[in-house]
Amino acid sequence: MARRVTASPDTGYAGAGYAGAHSPRLKAARRLTKRAFRQRERAFLAEGPQAVAEAHHCGAHVTDLFVTVPARSRHSDLVNAIAQAGIPVHVVSGEVMAELAQTVTPQGLLAVCDFIDVPLTEIIPAGHPGADEGTPPGSGERKQPSLVALLANVRDPGNAGTVLRTADAAGAHAVVFADASVDPYNGKCVRASAGSLFHLPVVAGARLEDAVTTMRDAGLRIVAADGRAGRSLDDPDVQARLAEPTAWMFGNEAWGLPPELVALADEPIAVPIYGRAESLNLAAAAAICLYASARAQRVRPVTGQAGT
Amino acid sequence: MARRVTASPDTGYAGAGYAGAHSPRLKAARRLTKRAFRQRERAFLAEGPQAVAEAHHCGAHVTDLFVTVPARSRHSDLVNAIAQAGIPVHVVSGEVMAELAQTVTPQGLLAVCDFIDVPLTEIIPAGHPGADEGTPPGSGERKQPSLVALLANVRDPGNAGTVLRTADAAGAHAVVFADASVDPYNGKCVRASAGSLFHLPVVAGARLEDAVTTMRDAGLRIVAADGRAGRSLDDPDVQARLAEPTAWMFGNEAWGLPPELVALADEPIAVPIYGRAESLNLAAAAAICLYASARAQRVRPVTGQAGT
Repeated sequence: MARRVTASPDTGYAGAGYAGAHSPRLKAARRLTKRAFRQRERAFLAEGPQAVAEAHHCGAHVTDLFVTVPARSRHSDLVNAIAQAGIPVHVVSGEVMAELAQTVTPQGLLAVCDFIDVPLTEIIPAGHPGADEGTPPGSGERKQPSLVALLANVRDPGNAGTVLRTADAAGAHAVVFADASVDPYNGKCVRASAGSLFHLPVVAGARLEDAVTTMRDAGLRIVAADGRAGRSLDDPDVQARLAEPTAWMFGNEAWGLPPELVALADEPIAVPIYGRAESLNLAAAAAICLYASARAQRVRPVTGQAGT
Repeated sequence: MARRVTASPDTGYAGAGYAGAHSPRLKAARRLTKRAFRQRERAFLAEGPQAVAEAHHCGAHVTDLFVTVPARSRHSDLVNAIAQAGIPVHVVSGEVMAELAQTVTPQGLLAVCDFIDVPLTEIIPAGHPGADEGTPPGSGERKQPSLVALLANVRDPGNAGTVLRTADAAGAHAVVFADASVDPYNGKCVRASAGSLFHLPVVAGARLEDAVTTMRDAGLRIVAADGRAGRSLDDPDVQARLAEPTAWMFGNEAWGLPPELVALADEPIAVPIYGRAESLNLAAAAAICLYASARAQRVRPVTGQAGT
C-alpha cells in the first residue's frame, strides 16, 4: 500500500507534512465541524490522544491525522504508528487545531475518521426475526445482546457522550441514537465518550419505534427510565427483573420521556429520589440504571441462608 | 421591614426598578462573577428560575433579584413573591443578563445570595467528638449523617454541581468541597446543581484530612471511589458494608484520587468496568456509588428463603 504521506523537511519529521491554512485536506476537515457536511462525507473528527488512539486501535478507518508540533512530540509513538499505517499526517498550528477541535483547550491531535455506525439489525444475532436477511452465515457469532441503551431525543452532546461512555463501562452491547437525538459524531459527544464511541456498536438516526420493535423481537425487555413512574428501581421485584436482557430507554435531558414514548416500553421505572432534588441529570440517571442492570445480570443475589 | 424596592413607572411593574449599565447594584453583582470578589463579599449569583426559586424557598438570604422583561412575565409569581418579601428587583437587558449569568442561554432571572456554606462541625450532631463546642443545646436535633460526599480536588464546576445534585437526590446529608476543589458558588456549579446547592448542607474550603477525621469521629466509614482498587462495588460483601453510615470520597475528574488520599480512607472501592471503557466520568461514578449506598441503607436485601 502506497504511503500517502506528504513529507516535508521543514517539519523535522519523516511522514508529516505541514498543512497551511489553505491546504485542501485541512479545508475538507474544517467542513466536518458541521453536521450537514459530516452526513454528506460520512466522515467525522475525533479529537485528543484518547479518541485518536481508540480510533486507530479499534479498526476505525482513519483517513487523515492533524497534529500540532508539541502534541507530535508528546504522543510520538501514536503519531508514528499512524504514519506507519500509511495515514497522512499534517502538522498544523495551535490556532488551526483549536478551530478544528472546537474547544478552547485542544490536546493537539485530531483524526478524520469514516462513520462507524451500524444498522439496527446488525446489533442482534443473525436469524432473529428482526435481523438483516442478507447477513452471511459466517457472521452468526454475534452475541445475543443483554444490555442496550436507547437514546430518545437526547439533544445535549455532552450528556449523550457520557451515556455512551457509561454504557461501554457497564458492558452494554450497543447504544442507539433514536428520533431527534444529537448526532453521535458531534465533536462534544465524541469528546465526552472518551473513546467509547469506538468500543461498541452505535446506531445513528434510528426511529425509536423501530428500535423498540427490533430489541423486543431479539428478546430484550424494554424499560423506560421515567422519573414519573410508580415503580422504583430499588424495588426488589424490579431489581430481579433487571437480570433479564434489557434495553433501557432514556429521554431528553430537559423533559424526559413523554407518555407516548413511555407507552412503547414494557415497564416504566423511576430512579427513586430520596432527598429534595426534583430530578437527576440524564447522564447520572443513565449511569444508575445501566449499572443496576449490569449488576443484576452478573452478580448472584446474596441469599439469607447461604451467606457469602 | 422596609421594602428596599426602587419603583419606576416606566417598567410597568410596581416593585421593580430599571438597572442601567452603571447602577451600583449591577456593578456589585457583576463583580460576583469572580471568585475573589465572592470570597470578599461572601455573596454569589444564582441564575435561572429553578435556582432563584430554591434560594427563595429554602431560606437563603437573597439581597437582589435581576430580571429581564420577558422573564418577568414568564415567572411573574416568583418575581412578585420575591418583591413582596422586600427584596429589590432590578430589570435589566438581555445583554446585561447574559454577562451576569455567564452563559449564552440565560433564563432571565438571577438572584444575589449570601453564602450558605456551613462549617464542617455543623453537619454532625452536637456532642460528637468533632462537633462544634459552642453548639447551643437546642440544636441537638441534628441527625446523625448516614451518607456524605467528600470532593477532593474536583476542579470541573459542571461535574461538581452534578455530584451535588445527585447527592441530594440520593438523600445524602451533606457535600464537602475539600482541598483544591472548585468553588461551589462558581456559576457553572450552581447551574449544574439545579437548585440542590440550597437543599443540603454544603461545606466549602475544608481540608480533606479534617473532613475525614470529623466524619470518622461521627461514626461514618470513609470509602474512597478509586478505579484502581481491588474491591468492586458489586461485590456482595462491599454492598453489605454500604448499609453502614458512609462518607464517599471522590477525586479529581482527570486523575482520580492519588494514593496518599486513598490511604486516608477505610476502604478503596472501584466501580467495576464490565466493558472496554478505561474509566467512568466522575459524575457518573459518583451517581453509581451514592445510589449503591442509598439502596443498601434503605432496602432490605432479598433473602433466598423468605422470597420477597
